[in-house]
Amino acid sequence: MVKRLEYAIGVDLGGTNIVAGLVDSNGKVIFREKIPTMAHLGGKNILNRIGEAISLVLDKVTSLKKKIKGIGIGAPGLVDHIKGIVRESPNLPGWEEVYLKEWVEKKFRIPTYVANDANAYGVGEYVFGAGKGVDSMVCITLGTGMGGGLILNKKLFVGTFQSAGEVGHMVVEKDGLKCNCGNIGCIERYVGAQYIVERAIRLIKSGKKTIISKLVNDDLNKITPKIITDAAKRGDKVAIQVWKETGEYIGAALASIINLISPEIVVIGGGVSLAGRFLFTPIRKEVKKRLFKYLAQRVKIVPGKLLDDAGVLGSASLVWHHF
Amino acid sequence: MVKRLEYAIGVDLGGTNIVAGLVDSNGKVIFREKIPTMAHLGGKNILNRIGEAISLVLDKVTSLKKKIKGIGIGAPGLVDHIKGIVRESPNLPGWEEVYLKEWVEKKFRIPTYVANDANAYGVGEYVFGAGKGVDSMVCITLGTGMGGGLILNKKLFVGTFQSAGEVGHMVVEKDGLKCNCGNIGCIERYVGAQYIVERAIRLIKSGKKTIISKLVNDDLNKITPKIITDAAKRGDKVAIQVWKETGEYIGAALASIINLISPEIVVIGGGVSLAGRFLFTPIRKEVKKRLFKYLAQRVKIVPGKLLDDAGVLGSASLVWHHF
Repeated sequence: MVKRLEYAIGVDLGGTNIVAGLVDSNGKVIFREKIPTMAHLGGKNILNRIGEAISLVLDKVTSLKKKIKGIGIGAPGLVDHIKGIVRESPNLPGWEEVYLKEWVEKKFRIPTYVANDANAYGVGEYVFGAGKGVDSMVCITLGTGMGGGLILNKKLFVGTFQSAGEVGHMVVEKDGLKCNCGNIGCIERYVGAQYIVERAIRLIKSGKKTIISKLVNDDLNKITPKIITDAAKRGDKVAIQVWKETGEYIGAALASIINLISPEIVVIGGGVSLAGRFLFTPIRKEVKKRLFKYLAQRVKIVPGKLLDDAGVLGSASLVWHHF
Repeated sequence: MVKRLEYAIGVDLGGTNIVAGLVDSNGKVIFREKIPTMAHLGGKNILNRIGEAISLVLDKVTSLKKKIKGIGIGAPGLVDHIKGIVRESPNLPGWEEVYLKEWVEKKFRIPTYVANDANAYGVGEYVFGAGKGVDSMVCITLGTGMGGGLILNKKLFVGTFQSAGEVGHMVVEKDGLKCNCGNIGCIERYVGAQYIVERAIRLIKSGKKTIISKLVNDDLNKITPKIITDAAKRGDKVAIQVWKETGEYIGAALASIINLISPEIVVIGGGVSLAGRFLFTPIRKEVKKRLFKYLAQRVKIVPGKLLDDAGVLGSASLVWHHF
């Protein structure tokens, strides 16, 4: 069966940039446009910037216009997924109670779907990526923070207050370190990018032998998760240790998540996940150590597949996944 | 509208006793029968005991027999909820791959539904108790262990491996105390009945002034959660402290659960929950401290309503809640 291709526009709204792209129903990004969000200019301007990004895409696709089935938007913060309202968004100051779906639909006369960005990413991995066809999955994105999305019984699950999937603020150390959110011992406080870097710096300062310092010309402020991975690939013990400790934290949180949800699969994406086996091996080991054998043998823990296009693909996937 | 009453038989299969009762569709337990499980006699015998318990009920209801809509059974352990098979059950040695639904239906010719007992309790609170009519809820039972059940989008959610709701083995202390399950830092290891008692004994032995020792005639082995609550009611500071610490642990775990699931309500039942306000006040305080304000203001945390009849009512409720 040859299925006729459809198209969607995916819009990834970030604190720094807005990326909008044309995506086909096979999950191929045809092209994409990126413009700065200019969040500091405030609420109404952000709406206009989103409009501009969508226009940039539409201007290029005149011939395909009729085949565009919808616009999907992934937005940071608390989203009303049904009405398409952004309730509040910590990274976009002044953005409160924004009727995003309504505004975009009025402007472009194209059906529009809005979701929290981590949730949209989860839908993307489910529709196009590592979670295709599964029954229930937990999708986690590792970067500056740690976000997540739940697909339960083949549907995005947002919960009563539409905030489900906030994996980053699950407690792994009851009396642990204070998180930016105000809570204590959140997993994000141990595995967010900057805390991974802090872990490396701590080990370096303790005098452990490592090539990491050399890779950043002794400017420790330049250390990134990617640099740590580069060092690990060259067999650097400190770098490997950093990923091991990070993986153990993530594994502990995953054990909680799997015990609660019993998902078929856990998909882990986002920039930090590019550490690959240096991160996934300790995660899997820790989860196995902590779960009942029955579950440990069955739940799959896999890397995300969407990679660079995750934002646009996740947003576009909303058009094909009504919930 | 007067709705015609229907009836169900609820069977609560425990490691020590089997309780079977007749329940009407308003959630009233008409009567119940209790017989020892005699789990040590092994698998086939347990099936026969369940049969006997059901027969004891049926023998008394000849006039209502036609109005019995079904039999619901709550069983400890890992259950296949669709096929009604008990896969394994730590408290019932030798009980593996037991085709419980099939066996009961063949014997009594009455439609039978089987669920994990904590899940059945969750359904009971949803159908008859504190969770009536809600959208999504997390139900927790506190006793020897800590179990749970999830109602998501108005249905019992069991997950891909039918083990969802295992709240007791969520990790609250990554490098904490070893749990019986093999995992480290499980919440159950801090709030299971025996650990609450241990907390009291620790405080007593540290020389803190308390009436608890007097209440058990200085035999510390006789301390129970109920005794601690009795002391708290008389203003005993050690007893109040025990419940406060216990509540803080539960609150930390609830913050994780609420962040992940975004439920409308959390219902907490089971024997240990009878500590009432001594436990619920610190739980609510801890949760409020840890959650985003938006959620903290909205999620309700309430005591279960089923009390003594929880087991039978939960099991019977399965008959009216197909999932």
